[in-house]
Amino acid sequence: MTVYSAPSREMMFTLETIGRLQDISGFELYEHATPEVVEQVLEEAGKLARDVIAPTNPIGDKQGAKYENGKVTLPKEFEAAWKAYTEGGWPGVPFEFDFGGQSLPWTITVAVSELWSSSNMAFGLIMLLNQGATEAIHAHGTEEQKATYLEKMIAGEWTGTMNLTEPQAGSDLGEIKSRATPAADGSWRIKGQKIFITFGEHDLSKNIIHLVLAKTPGAPAGSKGISCFIVPKYLINADGSLGARNDVRCVSIEHKIGIHGSPTCVMAFGDNDDCVGYMIGKENRGLQAMFTMMNNARLSVGVQGLGLAERAYQQALAFAQERRQSRALGAASPSAIIEHPDVRRMLFTMRSTIDAMRALVCRNALAIDLSKVAATPEERTAERAMADLLTPITKSWCTDKGTELTSLNIQIHGGMGFIEETGAAQHWRDSRIAPIYEGTNGIQAIDLVTRKVTLHGGDTVRGLIAEIESVLPALETAAGTDFKVIASHLAPAAQAFAQATEWVLANVTNSPNEVLATASVYLDMAAQVVGGWLLARQALAAGAKLNEDGADVKFLRARIASARFFAEQRLPVAASLLGPVTTGNGLLADLPELLIA
Amino acid sequence: MTVYSAPSREMMFTLETIGRLQDISGFELYEHATPEVVEQVLEEAGKLARDVIAPTNPIGDKQGAKYENGKVTLPKEFEAAWKAYTEGGWPGVPFEFDFGGQSLPWTITVAVSELWSSSNMAFGLIMLLNQGATEAIHAHGTEEQKATYLEKMIAGEWTGTMNLTEPQAGSDLGEIKSRATPAADGSWRIKGQKIFITFGEHDLSKNIIHLVLAKTPGAPAGSKGISCFIVPKYLINADGSLGARNDVRCVSIEHKIGIHGSPTCVMAFGDNDDCVGYMIGKENRGLQAMFTMMNNARLSVGVQGLGLAERAYQQALAFAQERRQSRALGAASPSAIIEHPDVRRMLFTMRSTIDAMRALVCRNALAIDLSKVAATPEERTAERAMADLLTPITKSWCTDKGTELTSLNIQIHGGMGFIEETGAAQHWRDSRIAPIYEGTNGIQAIDLVTRKVTLHGGDTVRGLIAEIESVLPALETAAGTDFKVIASHLAPAAQAFAQATEWVLANVTNSPNEVLATASVYLDMAAQVVGGWLLARQALAAGAKLNEDGADVKFLRARIASARFFAEQRLPVAASLLGPVTTGNGLLADLPELLIA
Repeated sequence: MTVYSAPSREMMFTLETIGRLQDISGFELYEHATPEVVEQVLEEAGKLARDVIAPTNPIGDKQGAKYENGKVTLPKEFEAAWKAYTEGGWPGVPFEFDFGGQSLPWTITVAVSELWSSSNMAFGLIMLLNQGATEAIHAHGTEEQKATYLEKMIAGEWTGTMNLTEPQAGSDLGEIKSRATPAADGSWRIKGQKIFITFGEHDLSKNIIHLVLAKTPGAPAGSKGISCFIVPKYLINADGSLGARNDVRCVSIEHKIGIHGSPTCVMAFGDNDDCVGYMIGKENRGLQAMFTMMNNARLSVGVQGLGLAERAYQQALAFAQERRQSRALGAASPSAIIEHPDVRRMLFTMRSTIDAMRALVCRNALAIDLSKVAATPEERTAERAMADLLTPITKSWCTDKGTELTSLNIQIHGGMGFIEETGAAQHWRDSRIAPIYEGTNGIQAIDLVTRKVTLHGGDTVRGLIAEIESVLPALETAAGTDFKVIASHLAPAAQAFAQATEWVLANVTNSPNEVLATASVYLDMAAQVVGGWLLARQALAAGAKLNEDGADVKFLRARIASARFFAEQRLPVAASLLGPVTTGNGLLADLPELLIA
Repeated sequence: MTVYSAPSREMMFTLETIGRLQDISGFELYEHATPEVVEQVLEEAGKLARDVIAPTNPIGDKQGAKYENGKVTLPKEFEAAWKAYTEGGWPGVPFEFDFGGQSLPWTITVAVSELWSSSNMAFGLIMLLNQGATEAIHAHGTEEQKATYLEKMIAGEWTGTMNLTEPQAGSDLGEIKSRATPAADGSWRIKGQKIFITFGEHDLSKNIIHLVLAKTPGAPAGSKGISCFIVPKYLINADGSLGARNDVRCVSIEHKIGIHGSPTCVMAFGDNDDCVGYMIGKENRGLQAMFTMMNNARLSVGVQGLGLAERAYQQALAFAQERRQSRALGAASPSAIIEHPDVRRMLFTMRSTIDAMRALVCRNALAIDLSKVAATPEERTAERAMADLLTPITKSWCTDKGTELTSLNIQIHGGMGFIEETGAAQHWRDSRIAPIYEGTNGIQAIDLVTRKVTLHGGDTVRGLIAEIESVLPALETAAGTDFKVIASHLAPAAQAFAQATEWVLANVTNSPNEVLATASVYLDMAAQVVGGWLLARQALAAGAKLNEDGADVKFLRARIASARFFAEQRLPVAASLLGPVTTGNGLLADLPELLIA
């Protein structure tokens, strides 16, 4: 097992070049977040991730969460990690000061989240779910609800869950059967079964605050008749102390490919007809309450792909430097395998893709921040749309690449990669859930072409493409062939992306099935072009810094090389997807018949 | 768990259109292999795979092989399966009649192997290793050795293993430390430790015949000083009965990501200085003896990728037809998810890729057969070269696609795909070893560009490209737009492949590192173009058959659709790899420094 260390330099560079680090503290909400403070925050989080959380990762995988008689037990090592995490104030990172938050922007939140995902993705899920539930209560709760729950949740004394899925209602929440009936005291009684509930039961926090989707009597059919309820595991007394056990129970946990340290629970609400719930938000508007936090959760899941890829890369690099096998050309004795060109190609594929993922995540987070704090309403609206546009791209692409790059780590390890004790396997197994949960990647692609590309009549995505193309002159005029090569690949890729986008816009209303058939291909293309563009911007920034006094020359040259590698290896493929995006639909129409022929 | 059924129609169609099924019995060696006999063989094998072997697959995964005190125990269900397999004479499929073989061509052998891989890949490994060891003894053993071992091994009464790898000698066998010293009776004493030995110890057969690489005293350094030895678990008496236990022992077995039913053993030879071995082939020529069977084993590993993909596809299709979720456009109630365009795209990606894999495997196997039985020496030589050229492509591409397509099966299952009990996970986990063993896919790519593309001064690969291009006129003149569309994508892809090939040929001698850096990309391109070409040939054949009396119209139309989908979705990407193949080397030269910057 290799040591994990926080990629602090890469994170700071990304924040500087993409995340407007220098400007953050200029916004009132984030005025304390100076570059120095941010660097310190990342350093502290990095230490916690490396020293305390990372060692729990293989333990969580091997021991897993254990279920017995309604109780879920986690490896005891998780307790100390949770204690350190909560005592450090980390659950509060993205929340405003009022209930104990740190009021840091999302650009920093995602950087910190990457550290948790790298160090123990399964354990990181309790943080992610707690954050989502906290957000939902923050945005939609009454003042009383906020007063009751937020401080404890932001302190990590209580943790939150999201109870959406039922066996017949996975991607389609309109089909849920859980019911809520009004009680005399204004509260509700909840009845139903939920599945795939992450950290639905566990022994780390004193109380668990379930957010539960259910239907009220006479609610309209489908997704317009869903309400959201707060269902605490322990009821809360008027003085804030814990009261009676509520009628909610974990029935079993799943045996999964990965994230063994994260209990995935089947939850029964109201088996004894006494499950107390409190409506949050308006009746029949429960899905809207969920969507608030769902976008951020989708970004956070993209961050998981990034975090796992980074950890896998560190492991692959260390192994490739150490393992000696076969002679590179001209070597007299077996070479470290990093000397073999094909191994180098795999490592640099990992490295450059991770750089692009991190930049994409950062740009996406910046859009969320600016949608709140930018100076003008126009800019806030535009950034809200940009966040909406980028989120499905970030979620899908970073999770797909998470699986691809953790698999490359196994490949670099050769036979040792297939042995569980090496640890490479765990990252790959853990990674496989991320393309599925929080909306499958196929659903992200549907969201992209039907709701996001069409935002503001297509102006948001057209604006993005114009922004991509606006970097070309600087690339073409910068000194050094690297930039010209990057431009030579980015220009046709951006053009292909523009053409594919116009095709989507022209057809999505009248021929939606044609567009939906290749939506995932379009998303993949979009992600690579955006990734290549962000890397190009970083390369230009690195080029400019190269001449500064005390410049970290190797690091900066590596950023330029990373952008060039991505441009040469990935962008031609991205451009070639124009054909696949815009064809194949006739076939798809006949498909079921042909498939079973 | 879904029922597996043999894809008999697809197999027969592949044999007819690619495998020259009608001609096989015209070759003396295979004169009994008439189309009717072949169909019957596949039917019988299909029943065994479906009814007897497939049910053992999840059992093997869950229980796994157990190690205790030198002994390895397999799930008891494996015993009955092994009995049925051996009693049916299946181990003898590719071997000539003399020692009890069935003397069937490799085109049939790989079809039968696909069934074993689909039904239980882990269990299939004992077959594969036994086949490899049998081949090696057949090709390099003395008459006495053949008489001693072959009949029992072909009957499956004894099984064979290949003992190559040592901790410091994985891909680079030149580094092995195992030693052989001559004994007075002409035999040898073996001493050393081997790792990653598949079915190195188990309880299915009465004896285990290890083929072991070791160095003799004074042997030259590196791969030119390796000899190969037969080391039976039980020594064999003069009358052929089993004698004393040899000094060879299984020390432990590995805990792996997948293929839990296949024990991966650490083997100790000569702990008590009394491990008896018999040299096979010439001293210091052990690697050459291994290479005989290694090429066929590489093809067989490609078949594993195909087999898993087929099984995963069957499961995905069944699930997509059954699972209802969300409404397709215009539907009044939740639709079977096969109605959703993105799910269709995933299914058809699986289907068309599997069709291409099966065709590639068949063409590769045909080349092996023709290298033995073709009428003229020129044809035999050309087909030997074609087999050599295609083998690394088949091994790498089919195993990479095996992992990709089993992953798509998980994705189609959504959350259920991440739960082990669904069974989708096992196929994906099992698939992950195939890109690693029998020469990593990176090593296949090195082999391709340094030894295979250069065969006959490049004439073999140029001949293949000419053959690909020779199908274009027929596509362009055939009735129906499908064929024209296929041609419009195949033509530029073939041209790009030709250009990339000339670049490889022009640079591999003088700038080997440049070529090695993107050898894997070149291999991927080659595989897709060859796959698209074989599908195009099948589409033309299907088109011709459509007008026959009693034609299976849906099945034949599906073959055309599959070729078109592959051409539209995959070939533009294949063509786009010309740039990535021929660039990026300058970067790679600096890479270690930049990576650790």
